[in-house]
Amino acid sequence: MNTFGNLFRLTTFGESHGPAVGGVIDGCPAGVAIDDGFVSSELARRRSGDGHPSSDITARCEPDRVEWLSGLLGGKTLGTPIAFQLANADCRPDDYEALRGCCRPGHADYTWDAKYGIRDHRGGGRASGRETAARVVAGAVAKQLLAAEGVSVRAEASGHTVSCLLCGVPAGLGEPVFDRFNARLAYAMLSIPSAMAFAMGDTPQAFALSREAFPDQWREGGSGPALTLTNHCGGIQGGISNGMDICFHVGFHAPSTRPDGMVCRNGDGTLRAVAPGGRHDRDHLSRLPVVVEAMAALTAIDFLLAAFPTVSRRP
Amino acid sequence: MNTFGNLFRLTTFGESHGPAVGGVIDGCPAGVAIDDGFVSSELARRRSGDGHPSSDITARCEPDRVEWLSGLLGGKTLGTPIAFQLANADCRPDDYEALRGCCRPGHADYTWDAKYGIRDHRGGGRASGRETAARVVAGAVAKQLLAAEGVSVRAEASGHTVSCLLCGVPAGLGEPVFDRFNARLAYAMLSIPSAMAFAMGDTPQAFALSREAFPDQWREGGSGPALTLTNHCGGIQGGISNGMDICFHVGFHAPSTRPDGMVCRNGDGTLRAVAPGGRHDRDHLSRLPVVVEAMAALTAIDFLLAAFPTVSRRP
Amino acid sequence: MNTFGNLFRLTTFGESHGPAVGGVIDGCPAGVAIDDGFVSSELARRRSGDGHPSSDITARCEPDRVEWLSGLLGGKTLGTPIAFQLANADCRPDDYEALRGCCRPGHADYTWDAKYGIRDHRGGGRASGRETAARVVAGAVAKQLLAAEGVSVRAEASGHTVSCLLCGVPAGLGEPVFDRFNARLAYAMLSIPSAMAFAMGDTPQAFALSREAFPDQWREGGSGPALTLTNHCGGIQGGISNGMDICFHVGFHAPSTRPDGMVCRNGDGTLRAVAPGGRHDRDHLSRLPVVVEAMAALTAIDFLLAAFPTVSRRP
Amino acid sequence: MNTFGNLFRLTTFGESHGPAVGGVIDGCPAGVAIDDGFVSSELARRRSGDGHPSSDITARCEPDRVEWLSGLLGGKTLGTPIAFQLANADCRPDDYEALRGCCRPGHADYTWDAKYGIRDHRGGGRASGRETAARVVAGAVAKQLLAAEGVSVRAEASGHTVSCLLCGVPAGLGEPVFDRFNARLAYAMLSIPSAMAFAMGDTPQAFALSREAFPDQWREGGSGPALTLTNHCGGIQGGISNGMDICFHVGFHAPSTRPDGMVCRNGDGTLRAVAPGGRHDRDHLSRLPVVVEAMAALTAIDFLLAAFPTVSRRP
Repeated sequence: MNTFGNLFRLTTFGESHGPAVGGVIDGCPAGVAIDDGFVSSELARRRSGDGHPSSDITARCEPDRVEWLSGLLGGKTLGTPIAFQLANADCRPDDYEALRGCCRPGHADYTWDAKYGIRDHRGGGRASGRETAARVVAGAVAKQLLAAEGVSVRAEASGHTVSCLLCGVPAGLGEPVFDRFNARLAYAMLSIPSAMAFAMGDTPQAFALSREAFPDQWREGGSGPALTLTNHCGGIQGGISNGMDICFHVGFHAPSTRPDGMVCRNGDGTLRAVAPGGRHDRDHLSRLPVVVEAMAALTAIDFLLAAFPTVSRRP
Repeated sequence: MNTFGNLFRLTTFGESHGPAVGGVIDGCPAGVAIDDGFVSSELARRRSGDGHPSSDITARCEPDRVEWLSGLLGGKTLGTPIAFQLANADCRPDDYEALRGCCRPGHADYTWDAKYGIRDHRGGGRASGRETAARVVAGAVAKQLLAAEGVSVRAEASGHTVSCLLCGVPAGLGEPVFDRFNARLAYAMLSIPSAMAFAMGDTPQAFALSREAFPDQWREGGSGPALTLTNHCGGIQGGISNGMDICFHVGFHAPSTRPDGMVCRNGDGTLRAVAPGGRHDRDHLSRLPVVVEAMAALTAIDFLLAAFPTVSRRP
Repeated sequence: MNTFGNLFRLTTFGESHGPAVGGVIDGCPAGVAIDDGFVSSELARRRSGDGHPSSDITARCEPDRVEWLSGLLGGKTLGTPIAFQLANADCRPDDYEALRGCCRPGHADYTWDAKYGIRDHRGGGRASGRETAARVVAGAVAKQLLAAEGVSVRAEASGHTVSCLLCGVPAGLGEPVFDRFNARLAYAMLSIPSAMAFAMGDTPQAFALSREAFPDQWREGGSGPALTLTNHCGGIQGGISNGMDICFHVGFHAPSTRPDGMVCRNGDGTLRAVAPGGRHDRDHLSRLPVVVEAMAALTAIDFLLAAFPTVSRRP
Repeated sequence: MNTFGNLFRLTTFGESHGPAVGGVIDGCPAGVAIDDGFVSSELARRRSGDGHPSSDITARCEPDRVEWLSGLLGGKTLGTPIAFQLANADCRPDDYEALRGCCRPGHADYTWDAKYGIRDHRGGGRASGRETAARVVAGAVAKQLLAAEGVSVRAEASGHTVSCLLCGVPAGLGEPVFDRFNARLAYAMLSIPSAMAFAMGDTPQAFALSREAFPDQWREGGSGPALTLTNHCGGIQGGISNGMDICFHVGFHAPSTRPDGMVCRNGDGTLRAVAPGGRHDRDHLSRLPVVVEAMAALTAIDFLLAAFPTVSRRP
């Protein structure tokens, strides 16, 4: 339930104000050199928000230094589980006392109470966006494997939408019925906190596409890989990659915590106004592209390893 | 890969013009009475298109009588695998000779060739929409379990969009990190042939929602289930159901086979015009609501059984 | 739960006296020619008992003709699910009326009642050994893939024990911690009805091996595959195949149904003597080697495909 | 691959001489109080060998203090992943220099080389018995859940055999075809380093049981749980628990590292004698009962949660 992937599997753990967040990557091929600096730079993108003007307003400023617990020897993967943790250095749990015992609107407080009957109220506990830091670490590892195969991942934010492009994915990846490449991408993206919508194709307006847009027509050419004149389908046909760029879009809702406070629900059904303590994103959109990229990379490496399990051991 | 679900698992099989399509349902609780008539009526909805004016133009008219192979005794489930088949009575494979060896635009022909190196070219083979008949059978079984728990599923089509409503889902279902209720719905929906987009909430315009729409505010009330004034989030918070109606939307692209023919790609990269033989949907949208409902029901029963495994054996 | 395997997955279905038993093989590579005659000969071994003198006493004499429902075109696999059924032609459910409502000793009657609250009492229902026919069909398919890779499987019965030898498995297959090759073999073997014990190595006396037997010592040699002087470990070290023959043993208990009748337990805890109607194996041991081989083949092909997923598509 | 269990899932990580060994428990119910002292006492049993006279000869003497990284608040489980680590305080990797580049007999060195092409040679790396410390921690958590349901687990060693008894398991747990309770026990036990054999029943001599021992006959009695006069089957019928004690036996081979040295294989096939540095168990049997108990507890809690998912939240 806290695991993503079939062959390249990430299990994440950690509460926002517990000792640490982290993860275990199981199924990473052996013999891959991991660039620690790249992992750090990806974490920095998540923390500060990818160069976006609003990125300086994110209040929590942890160093986010990844500590590897296993699976590496001399900087190379052993093929064994790669466990890592990020210490929660900047914890101020007292800031959240006002939230104990009540449920914020637009948050997972009420649903966690309904499911578990117990909840870490400090900074959202495990429901905090901080859990995505573990995804970014694993995504950074996956990207290094993908890069060695000529596959790149890049996402950008505009409005409430993050658009993502996977270039270099060979044709033939994905499963045709349930475990389609696009279905797995949708699953991956909707697992990101505050994600609301997903659309394949070269436009986020999939719901409004005209009948004439389909199908993409073949480009006349030699016996090489097949190409189409347009890419409205987004690089996947019948659940399987067709060799074109894979492009999709993810819609997010606005942050549920507002600077001017909120009206929370007490256990007895009465409401009360709460001025939020703690730190909360005013604009989380700028932090999201690197998370979208991470989940896209985890999805892609899983399908790539299914087709070419020794991918990283090519001489 | 051809299996959907964790506890209530459907494995489908069959090519459009092979001996049969069908499936195996594993994990259905024991002692549940199955209403054969309801299963047939659901299959009729898929076949004819749910009362839609265009439904009479669907050319393939098989009786679609489900034959149960196992798992039932005296009309009740045994808790063992429920296998079923639908014979492919109305097979005219010769109609598809013109398509042998070439790839249609907007279809899975090219991607299947890339993945498998072999393909049943007759009527799309396994990539045919006919595979969804097996989903509808399993969905009909799931709906009967859900109905006994007070959960209903209903979808409707308009434009290129199918909108679906799950009513009566109790709060607390779903997993908070990866296996979110909304993520699993997205995965289920994008596994339907020609699905392009998915959006949670009471409007398909999730990509265009204003910042002011969020969060849904609490309704003041007693100690009963919590309610919100609006339902823009679509009944799921942090991946877990909140007790409100679950509503979402699925966008589909238009059928790729056009009545006026198409330009196909030969193996050597040259193109050729083909007048489609065989039978193809001119308007498949009207057939889709019952498929969307089936996948929604399979998703919901899986989460319900995870929380209440003996759900159907309550006295 | 009714599925075996990770990549080459068999789902079986069917009750002994329902319409059919059968299965779905998912994950079989595309383009493999299936020898129908070999499948039939394997079924004949299971039915009659592998040439054993006692094999003629098995009362149920169904033709066991496999009917393929999907996944094959012109005798070759398509890469799609291979569904098959064996009709239960020789059904005499009335023979079992005396057993309705009571639990036989040494059978799964009581435990099925405890688990499901409903049970098909006719000939053991799904708990019947007839379910293993579906395993034999899938095992025959797996053996054909293994043979193409130079791997053979052969089991023999003596006393209450079946001994099995897998020859030609390359070194490096298996997972080192939980999903060990030997652990998966043990799991596979204990899933066979009436299996009681499992032992790796070149003798079934693993419980009584002397300290001096271990470890197997290296044979001095060139740079080719490593060999050992003895094979007490049975070809697996640390959960991973070492390139030597894989050998193991399975212990079975005697058939629980005796020709002289049995004392059954009624629902109220009283006992009653029952003269068994229906057909029952007097000596089922002779039927077991082909089942052991099937489960060994399913285990081996799964590990082989994990290492070499395109195994069958080599030119 | 490094994960055990379906609902109560343990993922272990760590190399013997890396920074830490540890694990992540996913699926533990919320609201369970964890007794840290009990976890420590179980680790002490594994470390020192359960009161066995030979236990003082185990050379490695780490404190084995478990550090919880997530999933607990005020000593109670949150329902979120419980991550923990055991620092590898007592590392002396230089002791193992003589083993670099050669393969010991009876160890996993050669098979890991064949599988991964890279290996941590220090103290066996991940193939070290130290990995079982993580299993013992998770087993201790599982035992606390089981105890609350009246289920106890106890194993004892004699000869090369560990015998284990699960008392209090209710009837009806397990899956009847592949995922049998006994099959999962066999899988769990054969995943323990140096395990060679598994036998169900009240004697390890399952391979030599006489025909007359079966079946266990019913005890005449009231309408309460059914009892049998003997328990040769070991508490499981047709893969499902019958309410009697579950008893089984595990056979282990002797430690492969001998105090008088060994003959290792170099990469070029030549042999060389090596005097083992580092620390190695002279008698590991005394350390094994607590590991057998842990794997039995993990197996049992998984089946218990499948039947009663809210088991720990009963008032």
